[in-house]
Amino acid sequence: TEVSARVLCAGGVTKNDVVQICFDYSLFGGGLGFHYGAELVGASVIPGSNLDPTRQVVIARDYRTTALIATPGFAIRLAAVVREKGLGPADIHLKRGLFTGEPFSERTRKQIEDELNIKATDNYGLSEIAWPGVAGECEKKKGLHIFEDQFIPEIIDPRTKEVLPLGEEGELVLTTITKETFPLIRYRTGDITALDASPCGCGRTLIRMKKVAGRTDEMVTINGVSFFPSQIEHIFSQIWGVEPRSCLEINRRGNQDIVNILVKVSEKIFFDEMKKLQDLKSKVEREIYQDLGISVKVKLVEPDSFSRETKGKRVIDKRESS
Amino acid sequence: TEVSARVLCAGGVTKNDVVQICFDYSLFGGGLGFHYGAELVGASVIPGSNLDPTRQVVIARDYRTTALIATPGFAIRLAAVVREKGLGPADIHLKRGLFTGEPFSERTRKQIEDELNIKATDNYGLSEIAWPGVAGECEKKKGLHIFEDQFIPEIIDPRTKEVLPLGEEGELVLTTITKETFPLIRYRTGDITALDASPCGCGRTLIRMKKVAGRTDEMVTINGVSFFPSQIEHIFSQIWGVEPRSCLEINRRGNQDIVNILVKVSEKIFFDEMKKLQDLKSKVEREIYQDLGISVKVKLVEPDSFSRETKGKRVIDKRESS
Repeated sequence: TEVSARVLCAGGVTKNDVVQICFDYSLFGGGLGFHYGAELVGASVIPGSNLDPTRQVVIARDYRTTALIATPGFAIRLAAVVREKGLGPADIHLKRGLFTGEPFSERTRKQIEDELNIKATDNYGLSEIAWPGVAGECEKKKGLHIFEDQFIPEIIDPRTKEVLPLGEEGELVLTTITKETFPLIRYRTGDITALDASPCGCGRTLIRMKKVAGRTDEMVTINGVSFFPSQIEHIFSQIWGVEPRSCLEINRRGNQDIVNILVKVSEKIFFDEMKKLQDLKSKVEREIYQDLGISVKVKLVEPDSFSRETKGKRVIDKRESS
Repeated sequence: TEVSARVLCAGGVTKNDVVQICFDYSLFGGGLGFHYGAELVGASVIPGSNLDPTRQVVIARDYRTTALIATPGFAIRLAAVVREKGLGPADIHLKRGLFTGEPFSERTRKQIEDELNIKATDNYGLSEIAWPGVAGECEKKKGLHIFEDQFIPEIIDPRTKEVLPLGEEGELVLTTITKETFPLIRYRTGDITALDASPCGCGRTLIRMKKVAGRTDEMVTINGVSFFPSQIEHIFSQIWGVEPRSCLEINRRGNQDIVNILVKVSEKIFFDEMKKLQDLKSKVEREIYQDLGISVKVKLVEPDSFSRETKGKRVIDKRESS
């Protein structure tokens, strides 16, 4: 709670703010984590939860929300709803937005800031340690301050596991200092970043990390939910009996991530087999939604087109990258 | 928070319980209301939120949930998932369930208790006053104890507005004693019940109210969400330009409430008009979902069948009644 409150303070939230939290209030830490943090700051909290963007805009207007907490993708969808309703940024009262949960390029930041007329800051955390609340950007937007009294950050070379000197890019490794229920020592986050100890204009002396530039593994984040391709392969093998050769294709359409799972179909398929395959397809889609909480489409592709498209990769990410 | 904790205590929840709350954690009071209450009791709280029943069962098993908080309809869907998975009540560790949010007959109670092998208690509240937390059943299950140090209950004749003697059925009227932000004096709840001041086997001296037997107005509750038919008519008039003659038809299928809106179509319809009508239909369905949070199907019916089916009613409720 305290670290989440600090993230909010770094992002400029005060007790005079009305904070609308557009994160799932479930086992997922985002909703309740920010909720308790905002209460500690003394702000008024609106549990927007996972209501759709249209209702969130109505709520934001009715309650005069000043601070938005969401994924960057959700903020862009909100901005689109504001436009569709013929409203401008002046009709809503947003001043700032704190974003997390998915990659967030400077171009996306500029788009959100322009469309909603707010200051947009990034923050970082992970469920295993604290989410939200490992690090947060201040209003200078020059990297995320890590709460060093709570967490010791190190950067290692993910291959050699050697600790790298300040400023070099590598995998972030965290050690918790104060955590009692689930302490971790030199936990490899899998996130690629670099540390910057130079003084920050905001006055905070805490070290800063750069925006996360990628992963050391194949972890994928879709609309704020993280998973590994192997989890999807496991579901396939349970339902299909055998694990088909598959590949995730991720697109961004209308500011939402769309996931297709391309599955190689190796033989000629007859009509009755087709019917059976369709059933298996829907079953896999349903199971993936139930287990991982993400919507996907399974697409059957011919072996030829498959190898041409994927070149042996398990994930093809066609979204913008920073 | 305190009244919600009392409801939980009345239902038998202690600090040794693992409480899974299957209510929306949003502006709707159910999720966060029970959450804070359960924390005050000292129980472990699992924010199940509005995850689907299959995931809730997985969570309940993993975390060894002992107390379930949900709508009765949701409990029945959970029990169905447990059966489908080939599990029995012994495989999950539930001991008690606290239910609210929709009508709850003795037959439904028996079904839930048998299928999940739990004690099921009912409780009562309303958003305008306290939800959860106006009244709750104790383990004797002989009516809901009203927290009389917080709320003064009266029963009136909804027609004459006269206060009725103890035991007679009428509309519940509540006055708040301790509420500061939004106090209410003699607030007409619209709920039909009766009071019972006879001693209760549990030792509590608080007066009891019977299960709510109906409404004085046309308010409808669908899967835990309450609304008035006039709200739906308002959406129609905004989208169709004119308010068509319509009627809500509510069915229960597979333990979920299904709502059809029957709309009278007065003229002969040509193919291109049909297309336009279909668009209007989807638009109304979408708007109702966004505004009220309920899924409905709009059905166009011929004027004849319409008058025969509805006999001038705005709502036909085909669900079981207590």
